[in-house]
Amino acid sequence: MPLAIDKELDSIASELLADYRRERAIDNVSDLHRLPNREVIFDCVRKLLAVIYPGYYRDESGRRHSVGGILPALLEEVLHHLSRQAAIALEGDPALPCDKCAARERARKLALEFLRRLPKVRAALEEDLQAAYEGDPAAFSLAEIIMAYPGLFAVSVHRLAHELYRLGIPLIPRVMSEYAHSKTGIDIHPGARIGRRFFIDHGTGVVIGQSTVIGNNVKIYQGVTLGALSTQGGQALRDVKRHPTIEDDVVIYAGASILGGNTVIGRGSVIGGNAFITASIRPGTRVSIKTKELDLKTVREKSGSGNPHDECWDYAI
Amino acid sequence: MPLAIDKELDSIASELLADYRRERAIDNVSDLHRLPNREVIFDCVRKLLAVIYPGYYRDESGRRHSVGGILPALLEEVLHHLSRQAAIALEGDPALPCDKCAARERARKLALEFLRRLPKVRAALEEDLQAAYEGDPAAFSLAEIIMAYPGLFAVSVHRLAHELYRLGIPLIPRVMSEYAHSKTGIDIHPGARIGRRFFIDHGTGVVIGQSTVIGNNVKIYQGVTLGALSTQGGQALRDVKRHPTIEDDVVIYAGASILGGNTVIGRGSVIGGNAFITASIRPGTRVSIKTKELDLKTVREKSGSGNPHDECWDYAI
Amino acid sequence: MPLAIDKELDSIASELLADYRRERAIDNVSDLHRLPNREVIFDCVRKLLAVIYPGYYRDESGRRHSVGGILPALLEEVLHHLSRQAAIALEGDPALPCDKCAARERARKLALEFLRRLPKVRAALEEDLQAAYEGDPAAFSLAEIIMAYPGLFAVSVHRLAHELYRLGIPLIPRVMSEYAHSKTGIDIHPGARIGRRFFIDHGTGVVIGQSTVIGNNVKIYQGVTLGALSTQGGQALRDVKRHPTIEDDVVIYAGASILGGNTVIGRGSVIGGNAFITASIRPGTRVSIKTKELDLKTVREKSGSGNPHDECWDYAI
Repeated sequence: MPLAIDKELDSIASELLADYRRERAIDNVSDLHRLPNREVIFDCVRKLLAVIYPGYYRDESGRRHSVGGILPALLEEVLHHLSRQAAIALEGDPALPCDKCAARERARKLALEFLRRLPKVRAALEEDLQAAYEGDPAAFSLAEIIMAYPGLFAVSVHRLAHELYRLGIPLIPRVMSEYAHSKTGIDIHPGARIGRRFFIDHGTGVVIGQSTVIGNNVKIYQGVTLGALSTQGGQALRDVKRHPTIEDDVVIYAGASILGGNTVIGRGSVIGGNAFITASIRPGTRVSIKTKELDLKTVREKSGSGNPHDECWDYAI
Repeated sequence: MPLAIDKELDSIASELLADYRRERAIDNVSDLHRLPNREVIFDCVRKLLAVIYPGYYRDESGRRHSVGGILPALLEEVLHHLSRQAAIALEGDPALPCDKCAARERARKLALEFLRRLPKVRAALEEDLQAAYEGDPAAFSLAEIIMAYPGLFAVSVHRLAHELYRLGIPLIPRVMSEYAHSKTGIDIHPGARIGRRFFIDHGTGVVIGQSTVIGNNVKIYQGVTLGALSTQGGQALRDVKRHPTIEDDVVIYAGASILGGNTVIGRGSVIGGNAFITASIRPGTRVSIKTKELDLKTVREKSGSGNPHDECWDYAI
Repeated sequence: MPLAIDKELDSIASELLADYRRERAIDNVSDLHRLPNREVIFDCVRKLLAVIYPGYYRDESGRRHSVGGILPALLEEVLHHLSRQAAIALEGDPALPCDKCAARERARKLALEFLRRLPKVRAALEEDLQAAYEGDPAAFSLAEIIMAYPGLFAVSVHRLAHELYRLGIPLIPRVMSEYAHSKTGIDIHPGARIGRRFFIDHGTGVVIGQSTVIGNNVKIYQGVTLGALSTQGGQALRDVKRHPTIEDDVVIYAGASILGGNTVIGRGSVIGGNAFITASIRPGTRVSIKTKELDLKTVREKSGSGNPHDECWDYAI
């Protein structure tokens, strides 16, 4: 590299180092080990899925071993890394009166408790898997659902992240749920409480907010929002129930939005596609947006404006 | 690691191994080689794209070789891995009366037939590419579309997966389409039949169901669902046409939903953004949701409730 | 591999090589070094994010060094690769009268100028980060937002890509924005002009078109489209303002579509969920779609048709 460019780069680097010392939130140079490492957390998720679904999440080494042979190593690695990341998150949490040593001990205790809950998580996911197969005519086999359904993937990561959330570990569960969001387009806050036999089909665009409560045997489709009415209150709304309650046996079709902490969708209701709901719905109600039989006729000459919204529509529905 | 923790981990591992022996669908430990490997299938997709678009999907080794030099190796690797994965999928298919040996032979035959179809797939994708360039004013060059348009990526993977689907290979095509879905937010079931010059712009949230039929020269935007009216019938609906037919020269704008196996969108129709269609539309029809010119006025005092839905809206449209 | 299969593969390879010589856009074999390499550009983005957020985007080597120690190496690598990719893109641009050597020199000059702007980009992102924290009751800490909010990720990549776009480098910015789109479901064209304190929550399905202009302190949610009314004009519309202008202090809730180059959403307005807007809105206006209090009653017998749209809805809203 020519000398002139070397000098330019030096000056850019100096300017950035000065910039880092401005002590804004974006400037974080004092202790790199104080921050959890996202890639390490993502790797824990992949290893946990390998524990949950033996045989389905394999790497090269996994293929050469039996499930029984690889399991203790997987668990030990998850315990090691998860404890370490959780300790960092616990130290960094200003709400916890916790020195470095206590954080490490507490993190290991919580991580062990988390691992103990894995059979319970597996039992829940077996039921989700069955619900997916029964609920989707396009499902060819149970193996297909484990290998190719983003809904089951997102719910699997959620059930893991939710246990960590309940154990009071900050930050890590949210990084896990964002891993699933990035892979699937399904954004479930780890705080959401979800019952048995839950099925999300397709799933892209689904948002399930932090204080959502979902009963058993609920099925939802792509683009469904279970959200807040407004966030204008900002941080003042932190502990308010802002997201809806969905009772047992509800189906919510694609693109429907259900908003508000006091909104309850009663048991057995069916919410049609694109419905926009901001108040409670009684049990067993079926709600649809209006569709009218279009009075069909053949088209007149198309206007040449190229703008479908000025004047040239045959029907406005 | 302290001895106490070692013992705890042992006990967790034992409990999980016992859990694996409960013979539910989630328990799959008898023969790990009986399941296709998702990562291997993903890698086949990447290699196939390198064959389809020479020069665009390069790894380090690809850069050091000419296209002609690397091609035979790519084809041989795809044949090897795809045959192997297809054989596993064919064995695992209870509908096929097929022993291990027959499955392997059949899989290799189908994989070869698939590779023979690649020039046909390339011809279709060249037309899709041209349609994208002509259809999007923001497209700067054809190279930009190959390198950065998720729509072309998803359609490329679909045209590959659809050939495998037509050849009767189970599971693999669905894993491929989910690979594209994960990368793009575009969910096209490998069973969907799609004509020439197809263009999806932006694409996040698009869902195209298994029995959809799409003609030539169709353009669709992000958030469009071509879906089923209801899936309450579950597995009983497996072979029913549940998804719509879109005829030639149709444009479907963002967020529109078109539902139902008997719904036909006639040739040359334009479906406006967010339209919700559950019945057939005659050829040449333009359908839009109602938009009214808002009678604009300046705002009154904002209510302080922070809830945009209680009383403080100026217009309800 | 049996001889017969070898011969089959040879014949498939020959046919593909002949196919590559047909000189369509999809056939690109003359000079592989004439095309930018997507993976190299993605890697530049990751390194730039490590520069922007010290301590947050670490690889193994990053963990062993101090921020000051790793920074010069990161900058040098970005300069090297970005210059090289930009030179390829500049050569390939038919609009630029530019030989190989001139392209290389120009690319290095532009890449250096880009690196000089990084402190300015960091200052903007610090403000975006604060806006996200203040705007989202579910945000636990600023670190959580940097590590797990797709909105901040997409805006970070956008602010980088937009600088390259303004410097006149073709193709590379669009490949960068598609990298962010693939990870987040948020599709921001690098040409969009975005003011200070911008916050996208959840974000899947957001589309922000090339000629969009967004003021300061704007907040938008998942599924929002800031798009064109129509693209039927195709390439003829290339330099027309086709996307809306959003003034300061506007909130746009989930699923709203705002379309058209002459559409201006006035300062302080609030656009409710799923609203479909194709005309300007005066400052301070709150627009919502109609929601009615449903006259609730309990359900009658469900029809057995399994089709939620034929006759069995209790309410059409």
